[in-house]
Amino acid sequence: MTGKSIQDLLTPAFIVDLEKVKKNAHVMLDRFQKLGVQLRPHMKTHKTLECADIMTAGTRRCIVVSTLAEAFFYADHGFDDILYAYPLPFDKVARCAELSERLSLFHVLVDCSAALEELKKQPLTRGKNWHVWLKLDCDNGRAPAALHLAKAISETPGVELTGIYAHCGNTYGCSGEEQIKAVAQDTTNFTLQFMDKLKANGIHCSKSSIGSTPSCSHPVPDMALLSEVHPGNYVFYDVQQSMIGSCKLEDVAVRVLTRVIGHYPHRNQLLVDCGWTGLSLDSGGRLPTGYAVIEGHPDLKLLSMTQEHGRVEAISGQLDYEKFPLGSLLTLIPYHACATAAMHPVYFIHTDGVVVDTWTPTRGW
Amino acid sequence: MTGKSIQDLLTPAFIVDLEKVKKNAHVMLDRFQKLGVQLRPHMKTHKTLECADIMTAGTRRCIVVSTLAEAFFYADHGFDDILYAYPLPFDKVARCAELSERLSLFHVLVDCSAALEELKKQPLTRGKNWHVWLKLDCDNGRAPAALHLAKAISETPGVELTGIYAHCGNTYGCSGEEQIKAVAQDTTNFTLQFMDKLKANGIHCSKSSIGSTPSCSHPVPDMALLSEVHPGNYVFYDVQQSMIGSCKLEDVAVRVLTRVIGHYPHRNQLLVDCGWTGLSLDSGGRLPTGYAVIEGHPDLKLLSMTQEHGRVEAISGQLDYEKFPLGSLLTLIPYHACATAAMHPVYFIHTDGVVVDTWTPTRGW
Repeated sequence: MTGKSIQDLLTPAFIVDLEKVKKNAHVMLDRFQKLGVQLRPHMKTHKTLECADIMTAGTRRCIVVSTLAEAFFYADHGFDDILYAYPLPFDKVARCAELSERLSLFHVLVDCSAALEELKKQPLTRGKNWHVWLKLDCDNGRAPAALHLAKAISETPGVELTGIYAHCGNTYGCSGEEQIKAVAQDTTNFTLQFMDKLKANGIHCSKSSIGSTPSCSHPVPDMALLSEVHPGNYVFYDVQQSMIGSCKLEDVAVRVLTRVIGHYPHRNQLLVDCGWTGLSLDSGGRLPTGYAVIEGHPDLKLLSMTQEHGRVEAISGQLDYEKFPLGSLLTLIPYHACATAAMHPVYFIHTDGVVVDTWTPTRGW
Repeated sequence: MTGKSIQDLLTPAFIVDLEKVKKNAHVMLDRFQKLGVQLRPHMKTHKTLECADIMTAGTRRCIVVSTLAEAFFYADHGFDDILYAYPLPFDKVARCAELSERLSLFHVLVDCSAALEELKKQPLTRGKNWHVWLKLDCDNGRAPAALHLAKAISETPGVELTGIYAHCGNTYGCSGEEQIKAVAQDTTNFTLQFMDKLKANGIHCSKSSIGSTPSCSHPVPDMALLSEVHPGNYVFYDVQQSMIGSCKLEDVAVRVLTRVIGHYPHRNQLLVDCGWTGLSLDSGGRLPTGYAVIEGHPDLKLLSMTQEHGRVEAISGQLDYEKFPLGSLLTLIPYHACATAAMHPVYFIHTDGVVVDTWTPTRGW
């Protein structure tokens, strides 16, 4: 496969521009190194070893995962200091205990007292403590309840309150750097104020982390007072992030290659070989260009998809079929890279259009 | 894993009721055996060996696939007489030739003269002929062009016009048995009339096939005059098929198990551990119950999903959280079984709630 031109790949194919990935990863590492904040990159967008190596600059330490399957995948390949940033699932406590005992650092997330009770029922062996991050909900004013829970965690034998975790998910409603920064500032303030309250109440907790690709792409100076950040999507970026203002469209590192497989002049449509198995249904087709941006063809719209077919039409006027012969390639820029990557059992990694590697993601839970 | 109760599975989990699968498969086999029509089941819904064995009653012969990856997967496991029901993709002609030479019967689909030209450029060796099915577009009146193409196929050395393939996709717009039967009748008439035209023009073509789960769940008597049918979804069925009228909701063989992982009384919502990686975004959330039907809880709505979370709310009134303790199970009936199955690397097969097997689907193209 390596050495092949991406133009010769069987389609649909998920292609990843290695130089852009490296650049996106480097910019984020560099940005937070300068701020003196630990970057703990999230793996959920790509779920591969290779990309994790790039995002951690080869340290294989200090990552976030969204599933226990990812946690085991990375642990099995020498990664450590893994934060399972998911409200502790009661069916998976025993598996979490297994990882806590195996790894030097495995962190779980707790957002309610019932979860703490589950941890108490499953004390760790080998003199280990549960490393717990408390999830802070920025959307509502439950800080008193969170303080109460933090105190309970810190007072529980065998359990250590390691950090405070806030996800500024509301940056996804932003448009432009100014709005992103306003949310980043709010989330930072909220988190730092909570850290102050912990201190004032004599509750020891060493770490605080906020995340999301938008806020970490445009950090505010006060984020330097946090100990960590945990963005993930930035390594690929996508159309959604470019619309929010996290990146430029040219920073997006991933594409889906598809081929024209039908001409339907009576409907003024083209058929392409990418359906929802190759792109996902994310965006709901609500972009002006439908379900994706078709690179180099702002006049085309990916109107609808079935399992293995996509229908493309001209946004205005008649399609010029001579420009799109059967078998010719179109390049889709995904609306949501996490959702598109999740559909592919293998990613084709290229430099300047030449395949240099393939990456195999982990799946499941 | 086998012997375990489905209630003890880690969630989200895609579970398949083996008895319902066997019943759905048996009913379809029996129905078309009685009509004297060959059932050529489509594999795209499940993509597993085990389910293919059930659908073919163990013959491992006479199937349809939607990707070349499926074709190779089945060929590698002793299946034969495989119809690759996809407009011949020009990038995959050499791979199709490989299967044509390896298998006793591998069929490709052609819907334009350019595709026929591609086959001519890649003549088969070992005295084999390309087995070509002509795709008939029921939606538009291009029968004259199709007749012209059929003639060209039949006159091309090394190529054999094996069958006529029509997909009555418009049954997906139906509601109720009567409407389904009307479309089934139209598609059957259209196809049989085309077969007559072939005969009248001295073009030899032995097979005709129409498909879709709705029409094959409610066949009209004239379908007995076809040689084959090619439905696929029926083996699982889903909410969409029950709304079309192909089946009853109790015929649906698949579910996604999910657990409650959060209570959000300030939003009147529950959080569950099934996001779009566990269900897909199919339906766009437009069901009265959102993205799925929550079994046994007609008053609940799956409002939205992120990658690994689902938000459930009460359709009216306040949620009674005591009914849904953290860790408790909810059972989602998928809107579109093909889309949901496509998200799972393993299916858990059960009989009366006890896991009896796991099935691993093939993926990719």
